[in-house]
Amino acid sequence: MANENTKINIKLPEPSLRRLPWYLAYVKLLKDKGEEYVSSTQIAKDINVDASQIAKDLSFINISGKTRVGYEVNSLVEVLENFLGFTNVHKAFIFGVGSLGAALLQDSGLAQYGMNVVAGFDVKKELAGTMINGIPVYHISEFEQKQKELGANIGILTVPVERAQEATENMIAGGIKAIWNFTPFRIRVPKHIVVQNTSIYAHLAVMFNRLNNLKK
Amino acid sequence: MANENTKINIKLPEPSLRRLPWYLAYVKLLKDKGEEYVSSTQIAKDINVDASQIAKDLSFINISGKTRVGYEVNSLVEVLENFLGFTNVHKAFIFGVGSLGAALLQDSGLAQYGMNVVAGFDVKKELAGTMINGIPVYHISEFEQKQKELGANIGILTVPVERAQEATENMIAGGIKAIWNFTPFRIRVPKHIVVQNTSIYAHLAVMFNRLNNLKK
Repeated sequence: MANENTKINIKLPEPSLRRLPWYLAYVKLLKDKGEEYVSSTQIAKDINVDASQIAKDLSFINISGKTRVGYEVNSLVEVLENFLGFTNVHKAFIFGVGSLGAALLQDSGLAQYGMNVVAGFDVKKELAGTMINGIPVYHISEFEQKQKELGANIGILTVPVERAQEATENMIAGGIKAIWNFTPFRIRVPKHIVVQNTSIYAHLAVMFNRLNNLKK
Repeated sequence: MANENTKINIKLPEPSLRRLPWYLAYVKLLKDKGEEYVSSTQIAKDINVDASQIAKDLSFINISGKTRVGYEVNSLVEVLENFLGFTNVHKAFIFGVGSLGAALLQDSGLAQYGMNVVAGFDVKKELAGTMINGIPVYHISEFEQKQKELGANIGILTVPVERAQEATENMIAGGIKAIWNFTPFRIRVPKHIVVQNTSIYAHLAVMFNRLNNLKK
């Protein structure tokens, strides 16, 4: 296939993929400080990840270090940002403009990482027609029409738990391809749908538990 | 030791601990519907986790199912909420009242899960003295004094990446025992400090990558 891009085609393991944003955050700091080169040993020391692990993770992306000096900082930032998709624009809708949904609409950090939230939807009629952080909120019945106009692939799921499965099915029927699930509910989806679970409340439980064990 | 509580002392594996909030979210739905009993098979079917895994995870907490009918729904909700620490009140401070920090202050969902955010701190002088969602924001120089008054164990880290390590050290010096790190920076901490990393932007990268692979 002529259009295939070998860079994007690399299937790197998910744990490696999850570490790449850490390296990016770190090398962006070095860039701001005007550093030119960085070795995997230096990254390792500063972010507490094994140096050989870092070298291995970075071997999956299209960059190679130079003997003795290491990776070129500017290139590393650029290659990581591209690889991670942070330089593209991914349109997203938020489903459920309650407390967490509204909070995410406020978070302009998402746009810096390539996610452009273009609309929010809610079942509450009184929310329809409002704007949060410059982003319009519509009644859920307008989803189909807005999807035709705006064409979003990503749906952010922040509805109450009892509506999570129903909202998921609605999103998929409307053409959403990837669901970022912030609810603690385990949604069921067809195989071709991407799901990313980010249950911040589950993380809370892990933290409370560790804190309790600490006290003993 | 006379005061030891065997229920809390159980060290269950972290993957099990991370699944418990899923079960809780699901059985709370059943409770709202007035269901009395639930089997691990039924939970398995509805949230797509292996039934034997569920039975094993639940064996770590102080509840047992009855033959043929399964677990009593009300007890399961209560035992899970207690076990996960969601019925306690954990005081927390937010460090960094930028976009994400302010968003988290808006999220009243945290209180429902036992986390009581009592104050926010920021280096920006113009934020000091403001209130977000009824929670006061102070200048970071007031942290020591407010810690004496309020005594929070948990610090939520939402400062910019370049201030993450410095803020972490400041938090620990001021008596914070657990850090909920929302930055993509890998903070370094002494062994006795609990760190929970929740880098939502790293999750974004994983989702973008899967979505890209889907298109091919």
